Amino acid sequence: MSDKIGLFTGSFDPMTNGHLDIIERASKLFDKLYVGVFYNPHKQGFLPVENRKRAVEKAVAHLDNVEVLASHDQLVVDVARRLGAKTLVRGLRNATDLQYESSFDYYNHQLAPEIETIYLYSRSEHLYISSSAMRELLKFGQEIQQYVPNSVVEELEHEEKN
Amino acid sequence: MSDKIGLFTGSFDPMTNGHLDIIERASKLFDKLYVGVFYNPHKQGFLPVENRKRAVEKAVAHLDNVEVLASHDQLVVDVARRLGAKTLVRGLRNATDLQYESSFDYYNHQLAPEIETIYLYSRSEHLYISSSAMRELLKFGQEIQQYVPNSVVEELEHEEKN
Amino acid sequence: MSDKIGLFTGSFDPMTNGHLDIIERASKLFDKLYVGVFYNPHKQGFLPVENRKRAVEKAVAHLDNVEVLASHDQLVVDVARRLGAKTLVRGLRNATDLQYESSFDYYNHQLAPEIETIYLYSRSEHLYISSSAMRELLKFGQEIQQYVPNSVVEELEHEEKN
Amino acid sequence: MSDKIGLFTGSFDPMTNGHLDIIERASKLFDKLYVGVFYNPHKQGFLPVENRKRAVEKAVAHLDNVEVLASHDQLVVDVARRLGAKTLVRGLRNATDLQYESSFDYYNHQLAPEIETIYLYSRSEHLYISSSAMRELLKFGQEIQQYVPNSVVEELEHEEKN
Amino acid sequence: MSDKIGLFTGSFDPMTNGHLDIIERASKLFDKLYVGVFYNPHKQGFLPVENRKRAVEKAVAHLDNVEVLASHDQLVVDVARRLGAKTLVRGLRNATDLQYESSFDYYNHQLAPEIETIYLYSRSEHLYISSSAMRELLKFGQEIQQYVPNSVVEELEHEEKN
Amino acid sequence: MSDKIGLFTGSFDPMTNGHLDIIERASKLFDKLYVGVFYNPHKQGFLPVENRKRAVEKAVAHLDNVEVLASHDQLVVDVARRLGAKTLVRGLRNATDLQYESSFDYYNHQLAPEIETIYLYSRSEHLYISSSAMRELLKFGQEIQQYVPNSVVEELEHEEKN
Repeated sequence: MSDKIGLFTGSFDPMTNGHLDIIERASKLFDKLYVGVFYNPHKQGFLPVENRKRAVEKAVAHLDNVEVLASHDQLVVDVARRLGAKTLVRGLRNATDLQYESSFDYYNHQLAPEIETIYLYSRSEHLYISSSAMRELLKFGQEIQQYVPNSVVEELEHEEKN
Repeated sequence: MSDKIGLFTGSFDPMTNGHLDIIERASKLFDKLYVGVFYNPHKQGFLPVENRKRAVEKAVAHLDNVEVLASHDQLVVDVARRLGAKTLVRGLRNATDLQYESSFDYYNHQLAPEIETIYLYSRSEHLYISSSAMRELLKFGQEIQQYVPNSVVEELEHEEKN
Repeated sequence: MSDKIGLFTGSFDPMTNGHLDIIERASKLFDKLYVGVFYNPHKQGFLPVENRKRAVEKAVAHLDNVEVLASHDQLVVDVARRLGAKTLVRGLRNATDLQYESSFDYYNHQLAPEIETIYLYSRSEHLYISSSAMRELLKFGQEIQQYVPNSVVEELEHEEKN
Repeated sequence: MSDKIGLFTGSFDPMTNGHLDIIERASKLFDKLYVGVFYNPHKQGFLPVENRKRAVEKAVAHLDNVEVLASHDQLVVDVARRLGAKTLVRGLRNATDLQYESSFDYYNHQLAPEIETIYLYSRSEHLYISSSAMRELLKFGQEIQQYVPNSVVEELEHEEKN
Repeated sequence: MSDKIGLFTGSFDPMTNGHLDIIERASKLFDKLYVGVFYNPHKQGFLPVENRKRAVEKAVAHLDNVEVLASHDQLVVDVARRLGAKTLVRGLRNATDLQYESSFDYYNHQLAPEIETIYLYSRSEHLYISSSAMRELLKFGQEIQQYVPNSVVEELEHEEKN
Repeated sequence: MSDKIGLFTGSFDPMTNGHLDIIERASKLFDKLYVGVFYNPHKQGFLPVENRKRAVEKAVAHLDNVEVLASHDQLVVDVARRLGAKTLVRGLRNATDLQYESSFDYYNHQLAPEIETIYLYSRSEHLYISSSAMRELLKFGQEIQQYVPNSVVEELEHEEKN
């Protein structure tokens, strides 16, 4: 049978333990899982895309079948097609996520009927962990190491020095 | 790599086009997909379990990698373990579903951490199609053939004659 | 132009000020508004259907274009067709109502595409007033006259004496 | 009896098939239905207001009792009063819409108690179709003709040429 | 200043770690916290009320200012008045809870304006732990000791022997 | 027993009757209640912080145990610690509030486990009254005196003159 290939995308600005948990769980569902760091080259994010990508790469280094890439100005389904991925993976935390995702699901199906989207429900310990909460904590001078992979802390420290 | 095996369960009392759509979509995600007709032997359903199971079997006959079974008085995760299924498949339609599923997800993970649960979001044309709505329509003497597989109509007609 | 006829239905067991408010508001939208007291003859309600209907009739006596009827074992759309009503009126209080109504809306449109359903949002002072809350208050020996039309109090007193 | 006059407002930037469906359904509820293209003259929209208005006008040309107008810097209830409209029409798609609308309903009732607001629930095929989704699709170079009236496609093409 | 007295009620059939967490947190907010085991003497519960009450008493034995009582056929606000409690304490886990509680809050305020209701949000590790889930797990022969106080396990074992 | 001290925070831009109601209700739960006017010194609000604070102070002048302060660039829990407040007070109106608050609750507990957060549910007459709605009404030249304390009207008039 042909290989099962999945794609999990996000801005990972920064990556959190919630992201990592979804990636670890999704990696078991596929022969190959791509993680796409999607960014907007015309808008400054919190962390530069290279730092975001490097943080994700280090955090998933223990997962043999996971590969990280960066992408911009492309539809998720077009990236999936290029990679041969037949399945998009998304995390779900609450009713607001569900409403946003239901629309995303609809348009992706309209644009690429051959591609399926699956959802993994967040573990309760990650329900409130989001990239935006991390940025807010950092703004107030708080530490975030308990909510993110070590690689994120390293990239943040590296950025601070420069 | 080892086979990917999934399990989709429900009471299918009766099966709807919504169920069939989830099964068709899920069948592409796995090497093998089991469909479990779960029933309560101590409680009379709308259709006898044999009729429900036969209706599902006929409806999925075109899907090579799908196999139907009936089960009672067993946890979903125990049935999954017996079948070698590492993934449970669930459909999602709305926020009420999500809240129910979040609890189901939690306990299944507690009971069987090695088993993952994935969700497929309902296509908009099936959002309001449920087994309970079918039973309600039938109670008012309405036809339901536009919402269910032909095999369900056949089982209903067969039941009526007896 | 042909007359605008509406239909508002419920079990009114008992009628509340929330029901009355929707009826008063809806009566201005139509040339004629029917209020249907739907009941299940095989199941004992809280108040007998004659009392429920009489309470509604007295409560809407000041509305010239409103007529009350009782109905059982019939689909709402079939009653609407018989009455020449082209519009169903429904009240909305919260997200749970909306989810229930979205399904009701779907099937009524499937069954009778020529009939439209409109919703009126509950005034904030009636958001928590429901027939089931009234029955619960009465069970605990509490008075309900501030939440229901006088005619309901009269029917309840009349019932108690018998 | 006096004429029933309704008002449906929005920014229509651009109009979608969802808007058109609500207008067609609402046009049957009233003797006259006004469609108000509300815009902010101090903020650049996606399409200029003349294009938006022309697209709506062409899309509703088959509806005898519908008239389109543009408005800015005015409360919806003040426009309704000027037009003699006693009813505002709104579309509903989900719980987020409901929460937004419940506040809009409250303030409009406070500002103009003689004006009623009615809601039509979106048909399932239009649940995910929104102006913002259209703008997003266009940003990624996707076609939108299956989601919008032809008149919108014409205005977009016309704009592109200039 | 006069003592701050609170009342937390429930059916505790059985008590869970979620209940215990709310009680521990609430006990710090008041000089005295009453815990009311509310039951229906006309309906058989899962555990007899004496067992439920004893389980709660043992579980809160380490909290000096907490006292447990059983109550039936009485409004919560009437029990609060008898105890001198000016504040009701409730746990919140999700939007469904909130909708139920909003109605409970409304009627309690109508019945007893001098009594306030406060909510504590469930910790994420208790979000899915409910009495009904416990009863379901037990029905399937699963152990529940990780979700409930030891005292509940003891009462269950004691019941089994008899 | 040691004093019960609470802290209610917000931007109060401007204060509404909804805020005042929560403060009046919360003041009865504590020996001392602090009201914190939180503002961002780097961003222009609608009303200057001095006006906001003065409006709050006048509105709560009848409450002996309430004290108003202004704060910026500080975490709510750090302000609470400085004041000796062991409890944060928050208002709740709907499911969107609940979702936002659940995250706020989580991080405040992570940052300061010794501090508890309690919620008061909005009275139905204040459900739709928000600072942002007030600003919107004012933008359209509408009066807001029925939704806000007199002190807010005074500050607005004073601002207008300058």
